[in-house]
Amino acid sequence: MSMNTFGRVFRFTTWGESHGPALGAVVDGCPPGLLLDESVIQPFLDARRPGTSKFTTQRNEPDQVRILSGVFEGKTTGTPISLMIENTDQRSKDYGEIAKAYRPGHADYAYDAKYGHRDYRGGGRSSARETAARVAAGAVARLVIPEVRVRAWVEQIGDAAIDYARFDEAEIANNPFFCPDAVAAKEWERIVDEARKAGSSIGAVVTCEATGVPAGWGAPIYAKLDADLASAMMGINAVKGVEIGDGFAAATNNGEGNADPMRPGADGKPQFLANHAGGIAGGISTGQPVRCRVAFKPTSSILTPVESINSAGEATDVRTKGRHDPCVGIRGVPVVEAMMALVLADHKMLHRAQVG
Amino acid sequence: MSMNTFGRVFRFTTWGESHGPALGAVVDGCPPGLLLDESVIQPFLDARRPGTSKFTTQRNEPDQVRILSGVFEGKTTGTPISLMIENTDQRSKDYGEIAKAYRPGHADYAYDAKYGHRDYRGGGRSSARETAARVAAGAVARLVIPEVRVRAWVEQIGDAAIDYARFDEAEIANNPFFCPDAVAAKEWERIVDEARKAGSSIGAVVTCEATGVPAGWGAPIYAKLDADLASAMMGINAVKGVEIGDGFAAATNNGEGNADPMRPGADGKPQFLANHAGGIAGGISTGQPVRCRVAFKPTSSILTPVESINSAGEATDVRTKGRHDPCVGIRGVPVVEAMMALVLADHKMLHRAQVG
Amino acid sequence: MSMNTFGRVFRFTTWGESHGPALGAVVDGCPPGLLLDESVIQPFLDARRPGTSKFTTQRNEPDQVRILSGVFEGKTTGTPISLMIENTDQRSKDYGEIAKAYRPGHADYAYDAKYGHRDYRGGGRSSARETAARVAAGAVARLVIPEVRVRAWVEQIGDAAIDYARFDEAEIANNPFFCPDAVAAKEWERIVDEARKAGSSIGAVVTCEATGVPAGWGAPIYAKLDADLASAMMGINAVKGVEIGDGFAAATNNGEGNADPMRPGADGKPQFLANHAGGIAGGISTGQPVRCRVAFKPTSSILTPVESINSAGEATDVRTKGRHDPCVGIRGVPVVEAMMALVLADHKMLHRAQVG
Amino acid sequence: MSMNTFGRVFRFTTWGESHGPALGAVVDGCPPGLLLDESVIQPFLDARRPGTSKFTTQRNEPDQVRILSGVFEGKTTGTPISLMIENTDQRSKDYGEIAKAYRPGHADYAYDAKYGHRDYRGGGRSSARETAARVAAGAVARLVIPEVRVRAWVEQIGDAAIDYARFDEAEIANNPFFCPDAVAAKEWERIVDEARKAGSSIGAVVTCEATGVPAGWGAPIYAKLDADLASAMMGINAVKGVEIGDGFAAATNNGEGNADPMRPGADGKPQFLANHAGGIAGGISTGQPVRCRVAFKPTSSILTPVESINSAGEATDVRTKGRHDPCVGIRGVPVVEAMMALVLADHKMLHRAQVG
Repeated sequence: MSMNTFGRVFRFTTWGESHGPALGAVVDGCPPGLLLDESVIQPFLDARRPGTSKFTTQRNEPDQVRILSGVFEGKTTGTPISLMIENTDQRSKDYGEIAKAYRPGHADYAYDAKYGHRDYRGGGRSSARETAARVAAGAVARLVIPEVRVRAWVEQIGDAAIDYARFDEAEIANNPFFCPDAVAAKEWERIVDEARKAGSSIGAVVTCEATGVPAGWGAPIYAKLDADLASAMMGINAVKGVEIGDGFAAATNNGEGNADPMRPGADGKPQFLANHAGGIAGGISTGQPVRCRVAFKPTSSILTPVESINSAGEATDVRTKGRHDPCVGIRGVPVVEAMMALVLADHKMLHRAQVG
Repeated sequence: MSMNTFGRVFRFTTWGESHGPALGAVVDGCPPGLLLDESVIQPFLDARRPGTSKFTTQRNEPDQVRILSGVFEGKTTGTPISLMIENTDQRSKDYGEIAKAYRPGHADYAYDAKYGHRDYRGGGRSSARETAARVAAGAVARLVIPEVRVRAWVEQIGDAAIDYARFDEAEIANNPFFCPDAVAAKEWERIVDEARKAGSSIGAVVTCEATGVPAGWGAPIYAKLDADLASAMMGINAVKGVEIGDGFAAATNNGEGNADPMRPGADGKPQFLANHAGGIAGGISTGQPVRCRVAFKPTSSILTPVESINSAGEATDVRTKGRHDPCVGIRGVPVVEAMMALVLADHKMLHRAQVG
Repeated sequence: MSMNTFGRVFRFTTWGESHGPALGAVVDGCPPGLLLDESVIQPFLDARRPGTSKFTTQRNEPDQVRILSGVFEGKTTGTPISLMIENTDQRSKDYGEIAKAYRPGHADYAYDAKYGHRDYRGGGRSSARETAARVAAGAVARLVIPEVRVRAWVEQIGDAAIDYARFDEAEIANNPFFCPDAVAAKEWERIVDEARKAGSSIGAVVTCEATGVPAGWGAPIYAKLDADLASAMMGINAVKGVEIGDGFAAATNNGEGNADPMRPGADGKPQFLANHAGGIAGGISTGQPVRCRVAFKPTSSILTPVESINSAGEATDVRTKGRHDPCVGIRGVPVVEAMMALVLADHKMLHRAQVG
Repeated sequence: MSMNTFGRVFRFTTWGESHGPALGAVVDGCPPGLLLDESVIQPFLDARRPGTSKFTTQRNEPDQVRILSGVFEGKTTGTPISLMIENTDQRSKDYGEIAKAYRPGHADYAYDAKYGHRDYRGGGRSSARETAARVAAGAVARLVIPEVRVRAWVEQIGDAAIDYARFDEAEIANNPFFCPDAVAAKEWERIVDEARKAGSSIGAVVTCEATGVPAGWGAPIYAKLDADLASAMMGINAVKGVEIGDGFAAATNNGEGNADPMRPGADGKPQFLANHAGGIAGGISTGQPVRCRVAFKPTSSILTPVESINSAGEATDVRTKGRHDPCVGIRGVPVVEAMMALVLADHKMLHRAQVG
């Protein structure tokens, strides 16, 4: 069932295919009176924009956003904000070959099994271009949570992880990998370039941290802050795993090792001595940084032929030519940030609804 | 914001605290005409029931379910099914000591920060007893998807993982750990018993597999099958990580290594040569087994004193006496199965709604 | 599709059949810290309770509510509040005759057409007993909106309307009809008694007014306050029409006649010179009393035989013996009040979510 | 709380202000494989289009719809369908005078009370132009329910009702009033013209009937077919009342008079001898025509000065110059039809979800 709306009170609905005329998002439930024009959103889209280095897809899209509603005299009105981004660089001919063949790892076969009909150009609705709409919506969400700072980075590409001893936030904007470790960034140049030249692809891990989240956002059951983050992150194209705090490492720990002891803090709030929990306990924020890790698989679009079948059920080999990201995790960084902001904005408003 | 309903068309709402008179679930949207009485549900509750071995909490709850509505002459009517389980073995006095102190790793502090008021007895709403209601609801969900077989097992406790070369499904019911590897089960006896005797606790990983899911359940965006599974699993008490298919391992792989090649199958459906994707591509089931891994942290209830604060903001040391599971992941197995069944039932019905 | 949950952030889910062991409601999203015990709810149930006069059904139900969760030390905790009412006076034998025959005007035929299976005892899920659960939930909703006063009354039974010149609110509790006009109440005694003795039934109109609603609750589109009220009221058993403010009379008016002029008020708020709009403009409350009228049809359960068919499709005559209200609109008064309170509580919280 | 999405599984989200660059709808959950292009939608928009006679607003909008997503090779893909209509004839200067004054009967004051900020040009989000988006979405909904025929007409303008003895469906398209009675249409010319010339306005009643709805759509509680219709209709601008079947007339009837007797029908289905219920019993369709009546108030935009206040709280007189419909109910006909189609499409899919 197509369900292109995300969120409970701060909600957004996205639409658009890779090779249609445009794509967009309708942001609903936004508080009134927030200062908003296109220039507030554009920088986030620019960060996600393809074609900015040889390490991302060479599709060239300006990704200029237009605000079509919900803003008057420079401020949000509280009514739905329609955001539209036109597609300009569509080369549908690149996809002719795979119109009938199912690309392994892509949703092609699953789509046809579900709908019996699909827009095969560039992955249609499953294209990573859809994430531009989320990034635009996320820029609006950030206005709702000015007390929160959201930042993400690539932590690992393939087997090569950063060294947190060299973590330098300023470095993130200095390289095409959103990498906070200048040494690792150098190594990634080589790794991603090799994958690109080989017509292959490579996976990555993105880490996201939100600081400034007060204690008390979230819910004990089902609409837990961590459950909603898990849904938000797992819903990003190519994501296969989500961890909150220590994640799978917590499974190998014991109760003492995993405890986050508290002491009376100077400001009346507790001072935590560790953050194994990733800032969330029992589904509710604790006031510590909210932290999650997100695993991106290598894009399935590779030049190496892979055994597959076509829509007639016959054997065929598939190579995906087109223009693709050798490592989709990289451009996942602004998307992960956007989803974090969107979930937090929703939970801030939900908390306010119940508790006032 | 309290949101105790899960699901989109097949929905359930749970209620109840650890030390209240009862807990329950209201299952709504269930198809009519399914054969249902208490005996259909009870075996799943018995599998989750505490007090069955020394490796789980010694709280002794019969967990007898009563069906209060929605069933007539042995069949579901299509109207809401109210399931109730009475609490019988509540020892509130055990919790007096922690009424004012915040147990590190628990939701105590976050609850007070949110609501300013909480039922501290046994964790109140955050008690793992809430999962009994989900298990009961999950038993109803299984009736909606008779074509699907859902099974889960513990794959790892602390650092000790099973050897899949020794995987024997029949073994799962033969030991108190839901362990499919008889050799690992022996080792876990020692590990869990040591944790128990030390007043400590230990984490675990649960794996769940659903076979028989046809291709086509799920959605391209937001209501993705994998996103809903991630939400369902991350919403279980003590869970800190969720993977679909290869999960974080996919992040270290390349496109060739992560491909799931297809060949024409004997039955007209594709024969997949691998299942790195865990049975889900682009948010939609592929017809392969749907597989996920779930990380449980060690329970935070330990006898070792941990630095903490009380509700007045003063320093205190907290030991959690009560009766607790040394490894909550173990009893997580029936809960993980229930959540898988609940998500799949919902998506089967959603798919039918859209596609007929 | 069975959808037994109502509301957006303040939500309740009801369950239970007329002749099952119990019925109930789970109230979710309630703010924490509200003073609540059974005695807060019981008076509203007592007002709706059957068997209190010869003008209502003779089924004798104490309708004692039990709170099973969500309250600790006399205050709401913010977690789901489970309310249960046991059924005690069920005479299933009364219904044997109509197990196979479809009662005209009842949902019998529609149920079978939908579900192929129904609990025919007392109307099963369609029994007006379900409204007891709403009344209980409504009592909780009132705690959320202490600034609002909700009251309803019967305005008309059959053709006999009250005279608003004789409107006396104190009178409402003085007669078995919730009638604010002592003269009309006398006439209704005769009308309803005649209907009862004839084994017939009679329709009624209920008016509900909420004062103290501040300007600003509601939404411009879809989640309009008036649209949600319309849904809430039309969802009550036997209701066939809903009006906000002047309702259908506005259709016969012109712009001048229908205007609600404003003057500067003493308190800085506008002083309205009329309330044709019923306190809602553009889906949003104006600060005037919110007022709606609700039409109840005569109950379809009558002793006069009516032509019908049975489940085999054969002709039959149906008389509905059982014990029925000769005028269901009367006991609709507490239900209408409850639905008004539930909608307003939800919108207060929604407004707070968006605007703070 | 802004909530611009309507529906449960077949959903649409609208956006856009009267004087913004465009408005639109995103239709989500639509089944795949339906034949759709702009020409399928345009005729419904043309029927609602302003400026087609002197009896409607003189604003001249071509209301050309563009499909931006969700359709490939002429068929729906099952993914969100983005529909956009550009605004071309905006004369913002007309509204300068009322930027600060609250027009009585409009949402101006309520908007400011809620949001503290509003787009006052042409009513902003509360403009009847929003209904163009619904009409476009409704055209898509009709594709989902080919078995159903939806038609609406104006039944009454001011006090002048049609005579059903002269009902001629073919007549509806022959006059500018959607009037099925040629005699009444003549009278309405005079009535509406007088109102127009006087700078006044007049109310109307629209009736809508859907034939071909099978028995079984809807739900016993809350998601009742009639409750959803009531919400849908009351959510249309200027609507103040909704009736299903006999509506308020049922309140004056007795059980015998209100019964819809059944006989065995030729086709195995019941033959109903009356339709007081308007095709819905217990919230579920009976197989009879689904019928509702909708009351439109006279538009509040009149040239006669009305006492009011401005945003500073000072007294002022307001005349609404602009270009307005003297009788908004007339152009409500295509909107009522659209909402009926949208509700029915949703319920068809919901029924399929639960019952298969």
